[in-house]
Amino acid sequence: MKQNPQVLIARLPEGKLRADDYELVETPVPEPGDGQVLVETLAFAISAGTRAGLQGSASYAGAPQTGIVMGAPGALKSGVGRVVSSRSEQIPEGAHVSASTGWQGYSVHDATEVSVIPSEHDPVDYLGPLGINGLTAYFGLLDVGRPEPGNTVLVSAAAGSVGHLVGQMARIRKARVVGVTGSEAKGEVLVKELGFDEFVSHRDPEFRKALKAATPNGVDVYFDNTGGMILGSALFRMNTGGRIACCGVVSQYDTDSPQPGPRGIPGLLVNKCLTMRGFLVFQYEARYAEAREEIHGWLTSGQLRSLTDEVHGLEAAPEAFVDILRGGNLGTRIVRLDG
Amino acid sequence: MKQNPQVLIARLPEGKLRADDYELVETPVPEPGDGQVLVETLAFAISAGTRAGLQGSASYAGAPQTGIVMGAPGALKSGVGRVVSSRSEQIPEGAHVSASTGWQGYSVHDATEVSVIPSEHDPVDYLGPLGINGLTAYFGLLDVGRPEPGNTVLVSAAAGSVGHLVGQMARIRKARVVGVTGSEAKGEVLVKELGFDEFVSHRDPEFRKALKAATPNGVDVYFDNTGGMILGSALFRMNTGGRIACCGVVSQYDTDSPQPGPRGIPGLLVNKCLTMRGFLVFQYEARYAEAREEIHGWLTSGQLRSLTDEVHGLEAAPEAFVDILRGGNLGTRIVRLDG
Repeated sequence: MKQNPQVLIARLPEGKLRADDYELVETPVPEPGDGQVLVETLAFAISAGTRAGLQGSASYAGAPQTGIVMGAPGALKSGVGRVVSSRSEQIPEGAHVSASTGWQGYSVHDATEVSVIPSEHDPVDYLGPLGINGLTAYFGLLDVGRPEPGNTVLVSAAAGSVGHLVGQMARIRKARVVGVTGSEAKGEVLVKELGFDEFVSHRDPEFRKALKAATPNGVDVYFDNTGGMILGSALFRMNTGGRIACCGVVSQYDTDSPQPGPRGIPGLLVNKCLTMRGFLVFQYEARYAEAREEIHGWLTSGQLRSLTDEVHGLEAAPEAFVDILRGGNLGTRIVRLDG
Repeated sequence: MKQNPQVLIARLPEGKLRADDYELVETPVPEPGDGQVLVETLAFAISAGTRAGLQGSASYAGAPQTGIVMGAPGALKSGVGRVVSSRSEQIPEGAHVSASTGWQGYSVHDATEVSVIPSEHDPVDYLGPLGINGLTAYFGLLDVGRPEPGNTVLVSAAAGSVGHLVGQMARIRKARVVGVTGSEAKGEVLVKELGFDEFVSHRDPEFRKALKAATPNGVDVYFDNTGGMILGSALFRMNTGGRIACCGVVSQYDTDSPQPGPRGIPGLLVNKCLTMRGFLVFQYEARYAEAREEIHGWLTSGQLRSLTDEVHGLEAAPEAFVDILRGGNLGTRIVRLDG
């Protein structure tokens, strides 16, 4: 019987996540039922946000659980694969689909829960700019942040799977873009390869001073992927009427004891008439198609580039995740199972 | 020569404000120049928000200063008076005006900086529902909070100058209203006299539990006058898509060491897709007339009642202010100089 390699959550992390919080097992490949498809995973993306689902308190993804396949639940569709067996008339065998595959070789899904990837699109783009990361960047920046030409847009975790797309989209909308990232090397890539105007490293001991120097006209839109100290510092750089799009809290995921919120909340919000708005990309599901069309246009014209950072094989996934939480990735971290 | 009694800021408070941070002096009554008017103060309102202007860091009102008349700067127009001498064709002697009188008997203003009060309006209402407090409640609730019929609206400092109006306006818009206040006695007034549905005392040792019980369907709109612990607790009661109107931070004014922001910022904003928006009423100046018309209609029909809490004489003002910062007021605290 054909075996399905799977990465299970062996235990909920205490303090920082460790690779041995996971275990690799093999189970029989499941059979699709009526109206279902069996998908062979080609690749999946790992994002820091998934760490929130392992924390003691329930996130939008529900309460954390052990003994289940990592990364499978929810509507994130952070995997792509090939349909190897179909019992649905909607989905032909051989089709490429995006799906919530989880960290495993094979998975069964209701046909309504996978999306067929048009043949002219690269499936791997559905893990980046055409997938949840790209849609998150698109709606968070354009609908929540709403930059105007000439505005200064600041983005944290700027070399991350969402951040590097946010910055480029802000440039497309004619904003000045400053990225906060964790190293000089990553910052150089943002500026030289992706057109960011400036970067600041949050490991710079003079971070606040460097942020001030990089934003001489203040900040109109802050796209926050981190929370914590970077959010606290950004608040002091915001211009009157500025918008903060709250996308994620990566600074607070890999810990048992989240920090208190930044000083200046809510005082600075009042004095500077700021708006902070949290969002989840699922709110925008009805507009995914329209967004994908525009993003695909930018990819085709070369205005938008996808940075990916690939590892190979399921057994590499746990360490690749731990590494992301230390800021080890440059762009979207993808685990490829297709050799 | 006629004398002008004035309350000066003698020193900036260290820690909690004290009445002897002020001093009472007399100076000659000033003369209006061309295009100016001399106003005799009838009454002025004291609000906790003014305390922010005495803190070390500059607020919207600018950096704090000693040796100046208390409460005079800015566009707050928190006083009303009678024009006793006019060198402006726009403003007749004898007119009632609202103006930034400050804590003094007489003041000179450019004619463009005072507003004539229509004779059919009670001047004292310009310190409450028709003045800055009422306009703040109106725009903060209706434009920032945007309650819908059947929504639950929570308001802190609910018996304060802004809060007691917010709650009644939310009832007019057919919301369910819960007020947070500092005593049972004040809470009873809100429920029995002003139509609030429930109240919770923030001095209740089981505050979080009481808040939960009072908001069984969660909170859709939170009108925050306090920040601090009450904001922190309210965040956990917010419904998905909820709005927080950040109006003031009274819990943090009377101290040298403001608390950090609430835990859950920005995590809860993301998970529950919440919007927090700070505002200053001055943003809405172009719409004051329209708002006053609607508020005046509510006052006339009896749908809206103004709670005031009056003291008499300039010398009573410092202690009345200290008392407000302890939560001693019920409604708008007004200092009357007209006998």
